[in-house]
Amino acid sequence: MNNVPTKIDIESAHERIKNHIHKTPIFTSSSINKILQSNLFFKCENFQRAGAFKMRGATNTILSLTEKELSKGVATHSSGNHAGALALAAQSLNTTAYIAMPNTAPEIKRKAVESYGGKITFCKPTLDDRERTLSEIVRKTGATFIHPYDNYRIIAGQATCTKEILEEINNLDYLLAPLGGGGLLSGTLLSSKYFSNSTKVIGVEPKGADDAYRSIRDGKIYPSINPKTIADGLLTSLSEKTFNIIKENVYKIITVEEETILEAMYLIWERMKIIIEPSSATVLAAVMENQKQFHGKSAALILSGGNVDIKSFQR
Amino acid sequence: MNNVPTKIDIESAHERIKNHIHKTPIFTSSSINKILQSNLFFKCENFQRAGAFKMRGATNTILSLTEKELSKGVATHSSGNHAGALALAAQSLNTTAYIAMPNTAPEIKRKAVESYGGKITFCKPTLDDRERTLSEIVRKTGATFIHPYDNYRIIAGQATCTKEILEEINNLDYLLAPLGGGGLLSGTLLSSKYFSNSTKVIGVEPKGADDAYRSIRDGKIYPSINPKTIADGLLTSLSEKTFNIIKENVYKIITVEEETILEAMYLIWERMKIIIEPSSATVLAAVMENQKQFHGKSAALILSGGNVDIKSFQR
Repeated sequence: MNNVPTKIDIESAHERIKNHIHKTPIFTSSSINKILQSNLFFKCENFQRAGAFKMRGATNTILSLTEKELSKGVATHSSGNHAGALALAAQSLNTTAYIAMPNTAPEIKRKAVESYGGKITFCKPTLDDRERTLSEIVRKTGATFIHPYDNYRIIAGQATCTKEILEEINNLDYLLAPLGGGGLLSGTLLSSKYFSNSTKVIGVEPKGADDAYRSIRDGKIYPSINPKTIADGLLTSLSEKTFNIIKENVYKIITVEEETILEAMYLIWERMKIIIEPSSATVLAAVMENQKQFHGKSAALILSGGNVDIKSFQR
Repeated sequence: MNNVPTKIDIESAHERIKNHIHKTPIFTSSSINKILQSNLFFKCENFQRAGAFKMRGATNTILSLTEKELSKGVATHSSGNHAGALALAAQSLNTTAYIAMPNTAPEIKRKAVESYGGKITFCKPTLDDRERTLSEIVRKTGATFIHPYDNYRIIAGQATCTKEILEEINNLDYLLAPLGGGGLLSGTLLSSKYFSNSTKVIGVEPKGADDAYRSIRDGKIYPSINPKTIADGLLTSLSEKTFNIIKENVYKIITVEEETILEAMYLIWERMKIIIEPSSATVLAAVMENQKQFHGKSAALILSGGNVDIKSFQR
């Protein structure tokens, strides 16, 4: 797939994956609506298989492989939700996922990949060593490398999340998605363009990892250097593919403070009784920091995942 | 309402309250089913308004008051979910809830009652002082005292939870409900008797608060003296009304260890990405400690509430 996904590509992706993923529910909270004087719809990808939207893209990509490719497995380097999702999708579709994982990755992430049958090769936590380790895996196994977001099939898969939102909720003023490498936001933008008329799409980034904000502002990709945020899913840089889709389609990018991310996460835990990871809380943080803009408006917020060791948090 | 609720009483209660409560979802978890080799259905009353099933009974009772009674408000003594639910139900139905609350109640419970417009009178944390304070409130305001469970309208309201389960899931082998004062379990037993043929109902109690287990075993009510459990919703004693319904209808009472309650709570947090309070975890703990009995069986587990300060937990 060498071109930006079309409307038909996203419809086909949805058809392809729908028996392999959960159609996640959309929750509302009257108490949060009351606090923020807005009409918010929370798309609960924390309930997605493997605990994050990443399952959509991973499944779409694996299901698009040839039989020969499938027989040799898939590979990636990641310490996060993409690794877990790729491992579970591979297991569900009877192939193998090889993961190059930094030896500093949290135990909870390692265990998730292992519990889904993923084969881990540990490497040093540098980009160089990760790429070298991955090349070695691919050379040895013949597995297909699946980039977490610089891949149009991944983007088409992530786009199905917003397709589901727009099939369920009409006349949304805004759609908000967390912004890391830009795969989810790219998919959100494409689905909004194809399946909605007037919804404005906003990407949300922590202030401490605002490389995408600066990249879009200045029209060139800045790498994410030493990002400092609790939102551990949003540390990566944009890629060529995601940069171009975002630059062309996004309404705006909002950056949010760490303190608000935590406050938003606790608010969702306490009021909605659901567990989300810090990256997911950025979208509510954006509404909290910009109440005037969202006053009286309807907005869908993508809660991207729920993989967090909540026992490690204390106020 | 002076008699044990009939089938028609429960149907009427459901009709009466259904526009004022959430019809909560039933979740499943393939990973927990795999671990326990059972087919479990979790009724998510943690998503109920005010965060617990107590909203059902409180709403049913308030909606059954005369106009004159309604104008004078309702009163109870409680530091837990009944107080919060009564306050929210009263606010929603345009009356006032007066709550006698021990001055040792956790801040989170006090804040919940206040946020729902409840009027709190603080008292000492003794039964004597709670009852004296409550009598004083009732004398001054003319409010109707609503006991948290020794009340057939409350029991009929709680029964609607299991009615919803049985309308959605057929041929359940077991229904499990947490057991404190016995209001939820009594309602569960009545609905199971009226709306199911063969489902066995099990009450679950912490070993450290096993007064109901002993009461049913010996055929007389033992008061709950110095209960020691993290399940703070299950500290109370049975009442005449709940004791009689339970004695006559329950399949068995299972008691569970504190350690298993915590393990079950973390399992649900981590795998299902939902927040439940310790009392709710007892039902999964019962399955974990009795895997042979539940092997290959289908069981509905009532997750009674989600009001917990999760930041206070660390392994």
